[in-house]
Amino acid sequence: MKKTLNIGMIGYNFMGKTHSNAWRQVGRFFDLPAEVRLKTICGRNRAKTEAAAARFGWEKSCADWREVIDDPEIDIVDITTPNDSHAAIAIAAAEAGKAILCEKPLGMNVPECEKMVTAVEKAGVVNMVCHNYRRIPAIALAKRMIERGDLGDRIYHYRARYAQEWIMDPAFPLVWRLQADIAGSGTHGDIDAHIIDLGRYLVGEIKEVCGTMETFIKERPLQCEAGEGLTAAASQQTGSVTVDDAVCWIGRFQNGALANLEATRFAAGRKNHITFEINGSGGSLVFNFEDMNRLGFYNAADPSDARGFRDILVTEGEHPFVGSWWPAGHIIGYEHTFVHTFADFVKAVVDGKSVQPTFADGLANERVLSAISDSARDQKWVIL
Amino acid sequence: MKKTLNIGMIGYNFMGKTHSNAWRQVGRFFDLPAEVRLKTICGRNRAKTEAAAARFGWEKSCADWREVIDDPEIDIVDITTPNDSHAAIAIAAAEAGKAILCEKPLGMNVPECEKMVTAVEKAGVVNMVCHNYRRIPAIALAKRMIERGDLGDRIYHYRARYAQEWIMDPAFPLVWRLQADIAGSGTHGDIDAHIIDLGRYLVGEIKEVCGTMETFIKERPLQCEAGEGLTAAASQQTGSVTVDDAVCWIGRFQNGALANLEATRFAAGRKNHITFEINGSGGSLVFNFEDMNRLGFYNAADPSDARGFRDILVTEGEHPFVGSWWPAGHIIGYEHTFVHTFADFVKAVVDGKSVQPTFADGLANERVLSAISDSARDQKWVIL
Amino acid sequence: MKKTLNIGMIGYNFMGKTHSNAWRQVGRFFDLPAEVRLKTICGRNRAKTEAAAARFGWEKSCADWREVIDDPEIDIVDITTPNDSHAAIAIAAAEAGKAILCEKPLGMNVPECEKMVTAVEKAGVVNMVCHNYRRIPAIALAKRMIERGDLGDRIYHYRARYAQEWIMDPAFPLVWRLQADIAGSGTHGDIDAHIIDLGRYLVGEIKEVCGTMETFIKERPLQCEAGEGLTAAASQQTGSVTVDDAVCWIGRFQNGALANLEATRFAAGRKNHITFEINGSGGSLVFNFEDMNRLGFYNAADPSDARGFRDILVTEGEHPFVGSWWPAGHIIGYEHTFVHTFADFVKAVVDGKSVQPTFADGLANERVLSAISDSARDQKWVIL
Amino acid sequence: MKKTLNIGMIGYNFMGKTHSNAWRQVGRFFDLPAEVRLKTICGRNRAKTEAAAARFGWEKSCADWREVIDDPEIDIVDITTPNDSHAAIAIAAAEAGKAILCEKPLGMNVPECEKMVTAVEKAGVVNMVCHNYRRIPAIALAKRMIERGDLGDRIYHYRARYAQEWIMDPAFPLVWRLQADIAGSGTHGDIDAHIIDLGRYLVGEIKEVCGTMETFIKERPLQCEAGEGLTAAASQQTGSVTVDDAVCWIGRFQNGALANLEATRFAAGRKNHITFEINGSGGSLVFNFEDMNRLGFYNAADPSDARGFRDILVTEGEHPFVGSWWPAGHIIGYEHTFVHTFADFVKAVVDGKSVQPTFADGLANERVLSAISDSARDQKWVIL
Repeated sequence: MKKTLNIGMIGYNFMGKTHSNAWRQVGRFFDLPAEVRLKTICGRNRAKTEAAAARFGWEKSCADWREVIDDPEIDIVDITTPNDSHAAIAIAAAEAGKAILCEKPLGMNVPECEKMVTAVEKAGVVNMVCHNYRRIPAIALAKRMIERGDLGDRIYHYRARYAQEWIMDPAFPLVWRLQADIAGSGTHGDIDAHIIDLGRYLVGEIKEVCGTMETFIKERPLQCEAGEGLTAAASQQTGSVTVDDAVCWIGRFQNGALANLEATRFAAGRKNHITFEINGSGGSLVFNFEDMNRLGFYNAADPSDARGFRDILVTEGEHPFVGSWWPAGHIIGYEHTFVHTFADFVKAVVDGKSVQPTFADGLANERVLSAISDSARDQKWVIL
Repeated sequence: MKKTLNIGMIGYNFMGKTHSNAWRQVGRFFDLPAEVRLKTICGRNRAKTEAAAARFGWEKSCADWREVIDDPEIDIVDITTPNDSHAAIAIAAAEAGKAILCEKPLGMNVPECEKMVTAVEKAGVVNMVCHNYRRIPAIALAKRMIERGDLGDRIYHYRARYAQEWIMDPAFPLVWRLQADIAGSGTHGDIDAHIIDLGRYLVGEIKEVCGTMETFIKERPLQCEAGEGLTAAASQQTGSVTVDDAVCWIGRFQNGALANLEATRFAAGRKNHITFEINGSGGSLVFNFEDMNRLGFYNAADPSDARGFRDILVTEGEHPFVGSWWPAGHIIGYEHTFVHTFADFVKAVVDGKSVQPTFADGLANERVLSAISDSARDQKWVIL
Repeated sequence: MKKTLNIGMIGYNFMGKTHSNAWRQVGRFFDLPAEVRLKTICGRNRAKTEAAAARFGWEKSCADWREVIDDPEIDIVDITTPNDSHAAIAIAAAEAGKAILCEKPLGMNVPECEKMVTAVEKAGVVNMVCHNYRRIPAIALAKRMIERGDLGDRIYHYRARYAQEWIMDPAFPLVWRLQADIAGSGTHGDIDAHIIDLGRYLVGEIKEVCGTMETFIKERPLQCEAGEGLTAAASQQTGSVTVDDAVCWIGRFQNGALANLEATRFAAGRKNHITFEINGSGGSLVFNFEDMNRLGFYNAADPSDARGFRDILVTEGEHPFVGSWWPAGHIIGYEHTFVHTFADFVKAVVDGKSVQPTFADGLANERVLSAISDSARDQKWVIL
Repeated sequence: MKKTLNIGMIGYNFMGKTHSNAWRQVGRFFDLPAEVRLKTICGRNRAKTEAAAARFGWEKSCADWREVIDDPEIDIVDITTPNDSHAAIAIAAAEAGKAILCEKPLGMNVPECEKMVTAVEKAGVVNMVCHNYRRIPAIALAKRMIERGDLGDRIYHYRARYAQEWIMDPAFPLVWRLQADIAGSGTHGDIDAHIIDLGRYLVGEIKEVCGTMETFIKERPLQCEAGEGLTAAASQQTGSVTVDDAVCWIGRFQNGALANLEATRFAAGRKNHITFEINGSGGSLVFNFEDMNRLGFYNAADPSDARGFRDILVTEGEHPFVGSWWPAGHIIGYEHTFVHTFADFVKAVVDGKSVQPTFADGLANERVLSAISDSARDQKWVIL
């Protein structure tokens, strides 16, 4: 007889929808060591939270996140709120002995993240930061291939880009993601954070960085009503954009590989374009999130007249996570990456042992983000 | 207060898994005029069906499909069994006044399909054949574009291919899909049927056909145990393959467009490779199921030095069905096409009015399939 | 001291330009056993032929092709005239003991081609039909790979298409290529001929065929002035198109592979789109002429989690013909395929031994073309 | 009666082969205002130069470049020697009143380039630095599109990469391109120079830069014999690599666009992979040299449900330079870019007026290269 894990989720917007789906789906497709029960969803707007509970399949809703923390039945606290509230919730949850799954970025800055790591370590609770892209099958396959030496014994380059276009219109309003006091940063913490995490996951720890940031549109109309932003209405008044529209940086990994990353919300035609290329002494890998069921692989050991980038359709049963879904050639989508993440997290909770990426990874990412911010501000190289 | 529609599903294998998921998800992402309740799943193997009920979220299971038909609470009968039982179940369901969703192909042959159409028409029940590929957003967009004239006023070519590789190994056993008495045909009814349906949907009715079929591996090991086949174990004894491994055909649509189709299970590297190109007087469309979130479009009216096939990432909120899922650039997968189909079917059931593709479409497809089979057998052109 | 081979070329239009370039370039990039001298260019329009001589680098020009045949200094007769004059020139050249390079299609029909083959065999002259696409490096590599078994021991499918769009505009005039008495046929002899030749080269001889042809635009304005046609001016009067705008056919090779080919001039966006896919028991190959420096290869023997179509950039020194040109990654273009063809032809002339594709290949192609024409006319299968 | 321009070319290796071909071909395909005569080829190795003269079509050869300068019949001096001799030859040629075409990079450093610019300006001679990639039809089309506003009124990003793999093998010898005293720098001057030039051409002047360089393999076998290097033989002794294997840099254009460039010889699978993406307020462009007949274009003004990157096959008669070659869909290759460059240069010489890119462009490029070198050495931002 399987144990049941009760979930309490804080936040109900875009990430709330995504996480709810993953909680509902994970036990349908993966053999889990526990049942998962969507117990409580929590959000400050009571009406919207109630609607979300009904729509997303939660048993009940509440407006104060402390109720979730205080509920002794809750086993797992899942944090999907805006970035400025992650630390308070996570630390309280740790103190209450809950397992914690926290959306990225972990906290607003390094000290906050350090406190969060200290809290979970002191409490000894299972913790994970939700870098769901690590569990895209193609990315997990990339990790497997690098570990077994398919790229040779040395990596030379990690070149990555996260490009979007959703705020290119100067009339797009000043949503919370464009305000430093709530979002912390712009592209940097929101999307650069993802490709930094993938770099750390696939290539290794970063040694030194030098970056620059740019805000192309410095003044925008205020938003009429708080909301998720992608479809936000604009008012007549304007306010200052206090975060970066784009960030570029170069650097070095501890293993000597060069890093070259870029994140932008001003690339016309790029919707959610996460691309990278990794060049090793024995081959190369290329990835594009918009074709996330594929992985490109160049094997320098192929016969000399028949070498070329292989377009691997990562939909075979033996590919990571894929066997739980559909036959070969039937692709999966964005939300499946959360299901994979949650499947591993549930196992970790039952095992009582965290799996990557932990809060410590979130902190390590934040240190890189912070070093790049310092570098951009001071126009100099920063050693980590 | 919304009405609740109770579902009874016959079949629990691959399609059973897919349909169950769609029934669970459809109300979470689409605004439906009724609640959907996964009431009964039915399968001949009682243990497996019970396990499927638990795994897929059905309230109860049974072993005799007549129980589902006889249950007055059941509003919708969903048929996902092997092809040879579609007709009997569907006709009984129609007589019982149930709305019916039937997996393709509708029946084993034209007379069977005719009886099914007669039954649903006589009973006046809402009916649909589950050609889920029609509701891939890129396909629905293709339909929209053709209808609004983006390809001009005349279509010249429909060239399509459905290529797989899953039985290329001569040691792969003689699963039910390779036996004519159960499956009806091989690639023809299984996968050619899909690209025929897409051709009828996007281009129009077919006038005449000429085809040929081939069985490349004529003898195979028997299967140790009945099952879904993709991972089937092989025995020492062999038996004859009685269906086609590949089918090629050429033909004409009533509007004068040429048809050129091919379906095969012997294309190394092609997993579930449904591709087509449609050439019209004003432009062309290209599609590949393995990249199903994309649609290629050549617009002959673009400026003369800047023309080229556009690679449309069909993930915008205004693209068909997409708005219910994720932001632009976040792709969806195979199973979502069933969710879209079921969303439209639920609306149809509440409206009391069938939507495409109906059983009549299933019959029309079967007539094309049958004409091609006759043509291949007799080595001659057949006029429909 | 190298021998010098004197060339006499009949024809000065598009193919004349292409062949002249190849004659000029071949000795600059390939180590030939003889010098090549562009002696005489011949065309009926004296002024245009003189201009072509100056522009393309020929020593002299003449208006009557018999002068070229009668010139004892001429070693090689190169025929680039419209299709209806190939036979007369080639037979006369053979009787005069000249080596002959003839543009495709070899003749207007099978009897003509038979006479041409008889003539060259009787005369014992070196002969070649200019199917230049055989010597695209990617195609020559495909041949090498098939011969060494990279695709396994059995080929299942050859699916090819030659798609263009240049006559889609109904106002495009009735150029000679649209008149059966001069061109013989439309897409069939002009472009289908190329993919038939590639099929015979790469897969084998064809056993049986069944095809259909279509003329989408049946009436067109007459052309104001004879010319190459692609930029032809139209008059007010119209005339009937007497050739096919598109041809589709299916068939079987002697080795059991299925053939599925299509040629059309009505595919919007397809400029000179020669594509094929060959599926064998051990892998597949894909090619697209518009990316002619690439060859796609799926190797079923690759590690099971890292299989995928390889995108081979065919620009390595060890790839066929490439070593004579530029370093890896620097592509070559259309006209280089003629240079490769002529390099092999010059060696053949010096060796006194024809190399593929000979006039006999041209005849074999014509037999396939003829069988398809018969099949389309009579609406039945034709066995070769 | 057309004037004849006599060419004297210094250098006979890879670039000598490329330039000779362009001089031979340019008058065959382009309508030039002068005849071009390949008069003298000059190289220090007398035997090799004589062989090159015969092979490449030059009337005579010599061993001392001053002979070329002193020959009053020579109108154009074409410099294709290693980088350390460009300045001396060019300055002497200018003083002798010759028109000068000089391979890139213009000189070894900024002072050298300044002297070269001063010399040509003082002498008033037509001058050009051979950045042939500017006249790839797709690049010239990109320029046209940007100038007519297809990308909107503002450019946000220029992201470019030049990736190769030819020295990844640690056993590859220490050819001259890996020695700072002859080559000046490694990837930086050799290939980064190209994408810098394209950035200046397409986006504008660069304001500030910050870069880093890396030498992955610091010690290599000495080369047995001087030569072009790509097929160089290695000896037992080793020496130090004194140039960069890779360079990454970020920066800003004067118009506010961000720059992010990378050049490397350590990208497995990348042969001559010049790629860039330019993001403007109204659209984006993407290019890949290995598919140099294509240009990707995203037009933000396309209908909102039918937007996507267009894959423009740049082979139409109205595309820059293309009309002189072949019909649509028939691609051109690497060497054609030199033919285009020389066609424009010949017109410039006859007009007596230099066209872009002039020596002043070469100097401007060198200033950017130098600023990046300084930045990398001092680990700081450098303002130009």
